[in-house]
Amino acid sequence: MRQEDPVATTNETDAMRRAIALSARALGATAPNPVVGCVILDTAGAVVGEGWHRKAGGPHAEVHALRAAGEAARGGTAVVTLEPCNHTGRTGPCAQALIEAGVARVVHAVSDPSPAASGGAATLRAAGVDVESGLLADEAAAVNVAWLTSVRRGRPFVRWKYAATLDGRIAAADGSSRWITSAESRADVHRLRAEADAVVVGSGTLLADDPHLAVRGVPDAVQPLRVVVDSRARITTAARVLDDAAPTLIAVSKDADTGHLPAVDVIRLPYAQEVLPAAGIAEETAPVEPPPATGIAEITAPTEPPAAPVPAPAPAAVGSGAGLDVHALLAELHARGVRSVLLEGGPTLAGAFVAAGAVDAVVGYLAPALLGAGATALGDAGISTIAQALRLDVTDVARLGPDLRITAVPTAAQEK
Amino acid sequence: MRQEDPVATTNETDAMRRAIALSARALGATAPNPVVGCVILDTAGAVVGEGWHRKAGGPHAEVHALRAAGEAARGGTAVVTLEPCNHTGRTGPCAQALIEAGVARVVHAVSDPSPAASGGAATLRAAGVDVESGLLADEAAAVNVAWLTSVRRGRPFVRWKYAATLDGRIAAADGSSRWITSAESRADVHRLRAEADAVVVGSGTLLADDPHLAVRGVPDAVQPLRVVVDSRARITTAARVLDDAAPTLIAVSKDADTGHLPAVDVIRLPYAQEVLPAAGIAEETAPVEPPPATGIAEITAPTEPPAAPVPAPAPAAVGSGAGLDVHALLAELHARGVRSVLLEGGPTLAGAFVAAGAVDAVVGYLAPALLGAGATALGDAGISTIAQALRLDVTDVARLGPDLRITAVPTAAQEK
Repeated sequence: MRQEDPVATTNETDAMRRAIALSARALGATAPNPVVGCVILDTAGAVVGEGWHRKAGGPHAEVHALRAAGEAARGGTAVVTLEPCNHTGRTGPCAQALIEAGVARVVHAVSDPSPAASGGAATLRAAGVDVESGLLADEAAAVNVAWLTSVRRGRPFVRWKYAATLDGRIAAADGSSRWITSAESRADVHRLRAEADAVVVGSGTLLADDPHLAVRGVPDAVQPLRVVVDSRARITTAARVLDDAAPTLIAVSKDADTGHLPAVDVIRLPYAQEVLPAAGIAEETAPVEPPPATGIAEITAPTEPPAAPVPAPAPAAVGSGAGLDVHALLAELHARGVRSVLLEGGPTLAGAFVAAGAVDAVVGYLAPALLGAGATALGDAGISTIAQALRLDVTDVARLGPDLRITAVPTAAQEK
Repeated sequence: MRQEDPVATTNETDAMRRAIALSARALGATAPNPVVGCVILDTAGAVVGEGWHRKAGGPHAEVHALRAAGEAARGGTAVVTLEPCNHTGRTGPCAQALIEAGVARVVHAVSDPSPAASGGAATLRAAGVDVESGLLADEAAAVNVAWLTSVRRGRPFVRWKYAATLDGRIAAADGSSRWITSAESRADVHRLRAEADAVVVGSGTLLADDPHLAVRGVPDAVQPLRVVVDSRARITTAARVLDDAAPTLIAVSKDADTGHLPAVDVIRLPYAQEVLPAAGIAEETAPVEPPPATGIAEITAPTEPPAAPVPAPAPAAVGSGAGLDVHALLAELHARGVRSVLLEGGPTLAGAFVAAGAVDAVVGYLAPALLGAGATALGDAGISTIAQALRLDVTDVARLGPDLRITAVPTAAQEK
């Protein structure tokens, strides 16, 4: 996207690196806002203030940093990971705050792609501020990938996490799965949860594992919204996910009977237009009547128009054979301010998300173990031949105790 | 195993490193012998000769190196990856050759565990030669792992190789599998083949892929024996594996009709005592009559007594639902001089080997792709619950083009 390499001093580059690190501290805490870090340098290039956006509704990163800098900001440089905003939301526009503080130069990493907030650079330039864009843009964008993707796609960013043996099994033949991966891997999953705005599971996982889904062991973590895709409302009030450790949302079908869940936050979603074939996971499937032939027009969940052009998604189904609409779910979550989703499976739900083109990153925890039988990590995703495989690029491989953590993203050629 | 750290000079350590590298050049070419490298240092510690064992029946490494050194060996040091042999086989004992050459000191990495050849160090010491053992023993043993394991277990070392997607699929739902992994990964498989004495596949893979199994693209490679486990002799004379690029062996059941294979090397194997349940791989299974209830006593393949104590193996079945005995197959291959086997699948065969405790190393080529359906890498291995999982230790992770290669070995606690 950059036309030319940004021109920046060593001090500014160091400051940007610091600002990116600061921004990452608030991952999972700022939705629907991005994470942003800011460092103020005085006229001599010395750091005189720093800050980061900590939560939606609170001061932006620039405001924190300007407060810390005080008069030392005058004539200095603001180094910020995202283009300063230009709109008045719950806080005033940062571009104006920087101008009023007398900052002479602004260096930002990533331009703001959101229609409402963009234009900050132009406002600054019009006020005579020197503006440089693109410094360490890739590094800054990587930290903000969930928010940037959500703006581009008009739906939350979806990271699919699974934990499997080397031969791709997430459970043994008898359904046992505790523990396939190591304590180190499981702790890392809590970090992923803490960085997400919502954690999503299907009713198969709910019924098999009775998961809690809240974050443990991550200091100062903001608990994500726990979402259970449970088309037939099979959840009981005794489910651990319904405790008060974090908010919880149950997504059911239009016609599900939820009379036994009086005090639970429930949303009703349409079935996908076409239902995928059953994925054949014994733990997840059960005899169900075929879903009614409902169309897109019957979406009952509140949806908002996407913030950016979005291609028409393929119909795709979620849930235990009952086929709720993935995009309707994501639209509902987006409307609630969710910008990043951690999809924790199981295989049927993951298959539906892959089929819907709604997986933006994959994090696989691979335990060096072999089972030879049992549920597989990914169920039917509507892929029948090699040419249709969802190809990924590996972006990271890490050892976690005895396990491997493999991170991958869909190859650019396939991106929609 | 070592009582104390070996005492060696820097020159000797450097020479051992060189000798180990030399030994590795002959991987796949020396069966039933080990790979061995040797470097001769003169009295001043300078390299005056080097050599490696190139093929069974040819001179041993020490003989090559002594010839190169000539009179300069007198009073010098022989650095060798394996304890010099003490027996007269097709060549004379190396211990004697070293004594006659006037070598004053021998430094070897690994002691010879084979009853027939061991004792070289004692012979050398009795002749007044200074002997040091254990220098870089782990590195030398890693290169010789196949041979050392075959001596310890009294059967060939088995390396199981598979190529799968990140979600553990080796083919798509329609059976297509070309190509899941990259050209880089496929080239690496040819290296594994070249380093093996035999390559083994089942009839499912044979019928689905008509594989050739010979080594391509590896200079000076010795072709491995191609082995097809084909209990009902379903192979036809048109199969690519029956060309003259490499020798081929077809393992069939006692009662298989092989009248259509007059010019093919066939061995008859017993069924396993207990037949595993069908692994459910559509490409590999077919309606078959249950195997006759044959016992261990009915083994018809020639077997030799194991060279070292071997625990009684669990009965395990190979082949497409028909259940030939894994250990009978390995005994037959061992009798033919095979010390290292590359098991190339498919899932049914791999499951039988895992069930038999006959997998010594796993090499998984993981393509960053998702399929969600299709055959899995490993079929039924008789494992029904997490506690029975075959636990491994990851010994290496490498990037091969877009793919990952993961190497793992069964954890020591489970080793038999």
